[in-house]
Amino acid sequence: MTTTAGGFTLPGEAGHEDLTLALAERWGADVIRDSDGTSLSREILDSGHGIYSTLCLIREDNDWAKANPDKLQQNFLMTTPVTATGPEVTIELLAGYSRDQFVVNDWDGLEFWQVFDRTTGLEVPRERWELVEGGRVVVRGVEPWHSYTVNFLVTRIWEEISMYNHVTNDWGDREHLRAVEPRHPEVREHLLAWLEQWCVDHPDTTVVRFTSLFYNFAWFWGDDPALPHVYADWGSYDFTVNPIALREFTAATGMTITSEDFVNAGRYTSTHNPPSEVYRAWMAFTQDFVLELGKACVDVVHRHGKKAYVFYDDSWVGLEPYSGRFTEYGFDGLIKAVFSGYEARLCAGADVPTHELRLHPYLFPIDLEGKPTFAEGGDPTSDARAYWTTLRRALLRAPIDRIGLGGYLSLTEPFGDFQDYIAQVADEHRLIRQLHADGAPHTSPVRVGVLTAWGSLRTWTTSGHLHENPELTLLHVLESLAGLPLQVTFHSLAEVAAGGVPEDVDVLINAGDAGSAWSGGEAWANPALVTAVTAFVARGGGLVGLGQPSATTFSTRFFQLADVLGVDQDTGDRIRLMRRTFDLAEGHAVLAHGADDAGLGVQPGVFLTRSDATVLAADGGTPVATAASFGAGRAVYLADHRHGAGATRRLENAILWAAGAERTGWWSTDPRAEVAAFPASGRLVVVSTTDEAITTTVHGGTDREVSLEPGGMVVLKM
Amino acid sequence: MTTTAGGFTLPGEAGHEDLTLALAERWGADVIRDSDGTSLSREILDSGHGIYSTLCLIREDNDWAKANPDKLQQNFLMTTPVTATGPEVTIELLAGYSRDQFVVNDWDGLEFWQVFDRTTGLEVPRERWELVEGGRVVVRGVEPWHSYTVNFLVTRIWEEISMYNHVTNDWGDREHLRAVEPRHPEVREHLLAWLEQWCVDHPDTTVVRFTSLFYNFAWFWGDDPALPHVYADWGSYDFTVNPIALREFTAATGMTITSEDFVNAGRYTSTHNPPSEVYRAWMAFTQDFVLELGKACVDVVHRHGKKAYVFYDDSWVGLEPYSGRFTEYGFDGLIKAVFSGYEARLCAGADVPTHELRLHPYLFPIDLEGKPTFAEGGDPTSDARAYWTTLRRALLRAPIDRIGLGGYLSLTEPFGDFQDYIAQVADEHRLIRQLHADGAPHTSPVRVGVLTAWGSLRTWTTSGHLHENPELTLLHVLESLAGLPLQVTFHSLAEVAAGGVPEDVDVLINAGDAGSAWSGGEAWANPALVTAVTAFVARGGGLVGLGQPSATTFSTRFFQLADVLGVDQDTGDRIRLMRRTFDLAEGHAVLAHGADDAGLGVQPGVFLTRSDATVLAADGGTPVATAASFGAGRAVYLADHRHGAGATRRLENAILWAAGAERTGWWSTDPRAEVAAFPASGRLVVVSTTDEAITTTVHGGTDREVSLEPGGMVVLKM
Repeated sequence: MTTTAGGFTLPGEAGHEDLTLALAERWGADVIRDSDGTSLSREILDSGHGIYSTLCLIREDNDWAKANPDKLQQNFLMTTPVTATGPEVTIELLAGYSRDQFVVNDWDGLEFWQVFDRTTGLEVPRERWELVEGGRVVVRGVEPWHSYTVNFLVTRIWEEISMYNHVTNDWGDREHLRAVEPRHPEVREHLLAWLEQWCVDHPDTTVVRFTSLFYNFAWFWGDDPALPHVYADWGSYDFTVNPIALREFTAATGMTITSEDFVNAGRYTSTHNPPSEVYRAWMAFTQDFVLELGKACVDVVHRHGKKAYVFYDDSWVGLEPYSGRFTEYGFDGLIKAVFSGYEARLCAGADVPTHELRLHPYLFPIDLEGKPTFAEGGDPTSDARAYWTTLRRALLRAPIDRIGLGGYLSLTEPFGDFQDYIAQVADEHRLIRQLHADGAPHTSPVRVGVLTAWGSLRTWTTSGHLHENPELTLLHVLESLAGLPLQVTFHSLAEVAAGGVPEDVDVLINAGDAGSAWSGGEAWANPALVTAVTAFVARGGGLVGLGQPSATTFSTRFFQLADVLGVDQDTGDRIRLMRRTFDLAEGHAVLAHGADDAGLGVQPGVFLTRSDATVLAADGGTPVATAASFGAGRAVYLADHRHGAGATRRLENAILWAAGAERTGWWSTDPRAEVAAFPASGRLVVVSTTDEAITTTVHGGTDREVSLEPGGMVVLKM
Repeated sequence: MTTTAGGFTLPGEAGHEDLTLALAERWGADVIRDSDGTSLSREILDSGHGIYSTLCLIREDNDWAKANPDKLQQNFLMTTPVTATGPEVTIELLAGYSRDQFVVNDWDGLEFWQVFDRTTGLEVPRERWELVEGGRVVVRGVEPWHSYTVNFLVTRIWEEISMYNHVTNDWGDREHLRAVEPRHPEVREHLLAWLEQWCVDHPDTTVVRFTSLFYNFAWFWGDDPALPHVYADWGSYDFTVNPIALREFTAATGMTITSEDFVNAGRYTSTHNPPSEVYRAWMAFTQDFVLELGKACVDVVHRHGKKAYVFYDDSWVGLEPYSGRFTEYGFDGLIKAVFSGYEARLCAGADVPTHELRLHPYLFPIDLEGKPTFAEGGDPTSDARAYWTTLRRALLRAPIDRIGLGGYLSLTEPFGDFQDYIAQVADEHRLIRQLHADGAPHTSPVRVGVLTAWGSLRTWTTSGHLHENPELTLLHVLESLAGLPLQVTFHSLAEVAAGGVPEDVDVLINAGDAGSAWSGGEAWANPALVTAVTAFVARGGGLVGLGQPSATTFSTRFFQLADVLGVDQDTGDRIRLMRRTFDLAEGHAVLAHGADDAGLGVQPGVFLTRSDATVLAADGGTPVATAASFGAGRAVYLADHRHGAGATRRLENAILWAAGAERTGWWSTDPRAEVAAFPASGRLVVVSTTDEAITTTVHGGTDREVSLEPGGMVVLKM
């Protein structure tokens, strides 16, 4: 097995040309890129490497943006609720919000504003409120002691990623970049012209790396040191709102959309909550617009003989690589910033020629959570090893074409061991890539369908990174699945309610908190959905429910699939209904083969609904893992899932047991080692997911003993 | 201070006359009673003591009951849900239920049965189902994979307290007692005639102790060893249901009532859930009936020159000492079985001449939870001390006239230290009783109003004993309040919504889980309620919210009083809305004077809604105790409350701070000692609530140091 150069994108840095070219050689980089805050010098551009240039079109021409303050991006905000003490209440619109980010839009779109009595939940008629000097709204004829809010439009005068980079790196008086709104025809025209000229001016660039398209995910900053960020959601379309779009939406769809459809009484349109019908329509409307303009941009780039890649983060909203129309853009590559294995699968699964991962740590002094990386107290090598061993198991299952880094390369100078480790990572990546190129790895015949409110649109993700919402059961499930040799597809509750469980699914997974988009919320009050899943299992299908699967307050059950699962949950309205006692089952297949009971947590009030459900693990008197037959099928309930080696094995066992399938293929006794078989190459790749040295038996064909260094990888003949 | 005999009720036991009379002397008993399973012999009856005879009228004449199987008590049950696999489903009615307790009533009232498709939540039309042989219902034309249940009427052939005593004491083939239904005119006539004759036959009896009236609290037994009890609720009116009553209810009220109004999709009418309007009407209708017949019984007893006491447990349903009409019965006394201080207040607060507590441990080999008491491995003296020191602090605040025991006196023979301890208890009781007789204890001017769905009907209780639902925040609050020198009243949400917070309340308490009758559930979606409490606090009132106060899913907030409290809770639909950071306040009055942060627990997702709310204690980043001003008033939030010395002090501090009041009166530095001042007697009573010896300073007037034995009590001059 030989490794060669290539498949690696290095962040170059003007002023550090020697370092740039030395590391390019050492890491086998075929491409050099710039980053936010860095540029590439002539010496680098002429070094014979491919050149990626990052462009964030909406904020590139800041002079133009400053000269056109009415062409900036907008969004709705809801004020803090204010309690009326008399017949009139005055509400300061921006109280609590960053005035560096937001200004009240008082020149267009006032017809979209809404004032609510949040104590009654009712809107206040338009004639009872007015916008007055100083960014305030006065509401008259109010009920004393009721609470009032205003939904209002703001313009953003600081693009949020620029804001983040600026604040994180203490950029002082460097100018604040502004994001223009491409729904204005003048903006569209300007962007395309600017891009055209840019391509002319940058003959060295081989790949334009769009970072990203037009709309960032929602990110509201605050002005209170105790609340510096108010709201941030990786998938929320708040920043696509503006009066032009609102008017065009109604003209195009005939549907009415209001500020409250975005504000949702202050919950906004978080990806973690089930979307409304009108919001789904808005998303589709936005996707159409982003596709049309994005494709025009790609065409410009192609016309200049360059490739166009797009970054699947930051202003990615509307891009939606899993909308089914992604190929229409004509992008040559998709780049994903990754911390976790599921994000590698998210990238790998998109239909595009080149899949590239931007690894972490980012070459910044501190990380996204404010901890030091390339700075005093940081240990970037350990960080890099942890990220890579987390990711690598996913790369064994689905091919990734390229990896790379971002940031300030010069920061790596004091960290020679980091430079060494990245060279090893680049080699491992090229080896795995070659194995995929030679033929697909072995995959179990068991087909898993993940069932959420979003379905395939949110394939291999919920929303954002695992560290942002580590409590999400489904994210941990996805992270475990990312490195398992299973076939995984994603399906929406609406799709199953309308057409039944798809034919190509053997085991359904529903995982998450009650009310969330991941469990599904009120969709489970739809008898068609419950009936479809019940019939599927009764006829021989498998179901793995985690957390609060199928949960909603409706009729007799809280878990609407309680009859199938054999467990339900008392949320407090059944405290005098006694709970069945049980003995723990011994030696069940779900907990076999090195699986453990780590991270099962407990869902308080879970109880058995049937005498024939088997309890595999319990917390006190509360079952936390159960298995039950239902008709010709089977169901497993797990109270929670925290990604880890023993938990991943348990999840795999649960899926296989629910499918009525035996464990086959290649696997290791110690679940901290994972095995991928590449039959075409006749190779087994065994990777460690732990920072301890381990020795384990690899099963499949002839059993053999394998030793792995901490985080190590070995390649064996099959 | 002298103690005398009296105020003590001793359970006598035929065959143990010497013991009975010796202990009567030693404990200062003025009254001897019989108990379930014991009788009094001539020697005891002639001993010169008052004689209580326990009567449970509905099960006294078992021969008559057996001869009239159509005159027994009934109730609704819901079957276990059954999933249809084809166009027809057969449901076995009694599956899972005790056939010793229940038989299907197939001779009357079939028109009240209902069959539901629980997948759709809709009722199945009557023509699509029929009752068939073998206690089964066949439902035709069903939807495959939907889940079906039947609400049906059963007759009970074993009265539940008889069942409990029988099973607990292994009574083998002793006959099963049956409860007759007094709604039948023949039953009513028989009961009154029987009571008349009984009084004639029992000239020695001075007090008829009704144990209790006509309807037991709901208690469904199961037939599965893993689920021996299915449902039990101390305040639920399920056992008042029968076809006669159902028909009379509609005739009397014009309201329709259905089986589903009692079954509630399997949740039944648990006291812990907010009651529906029709169920409240049913309760009132039942109370009228119980009062009318109960009064007739009391009249019989009085006519025979005896007194009539009633036991406030077991078949107490419909009695409702806090309905406002309790005095109409003409009872001479109310007897309450007590484990906790709040139950003593429950008894003391009823409007009746004599208040008696039946102490624990009950003289049985094992206790209600199955642990040994008067048996190998038991320690009844420790049990008695723990109960008494728990109770005694409540007796300092409200007068109790009598105490007593129940069960088999002979079981105490091997436990001489128990006999000694009860002598001490009886003396302490008589001393406290005398102090009350000489003049009321000092009470703080601060008036506390406890706000629940039930209001005053559930004064000083939620439902049942603390050990039955130890998770209930409100029960712990009541237990702490029971021994504090505060004025406490109970108010319903409906009353406050309609008329505002009563004038005689300074501080409102709302405590409990979201959706429960104690927090209030959907009642909080009523703007009138939220407005009333908001206005009350804004104008200077106090609010102490515990657990999930005012919580319901409605509009902007989850805690509908979030604007007042300064905290709200994210139940999962706000996970991308960031939470305000905070510093812990030091030295706040709520945590002063020996208060601690024990038992505050955590409500996950609680966050600050205002920058001016003060965090007193936190669990990680989640506030668990906060204090905030609101207008002229104040609000305290506590995530939970577990009764204990430091927590009781904290609750008292919170109430005083919310009222804007200073700590005054008499109190001890160590909260494990509680102080009651009796100004008329010029005495301070200092009681220990701990089983450790303590020394503390008693404040008020002249500070002085006091030492207390474990569980001890001292009386000082003021």
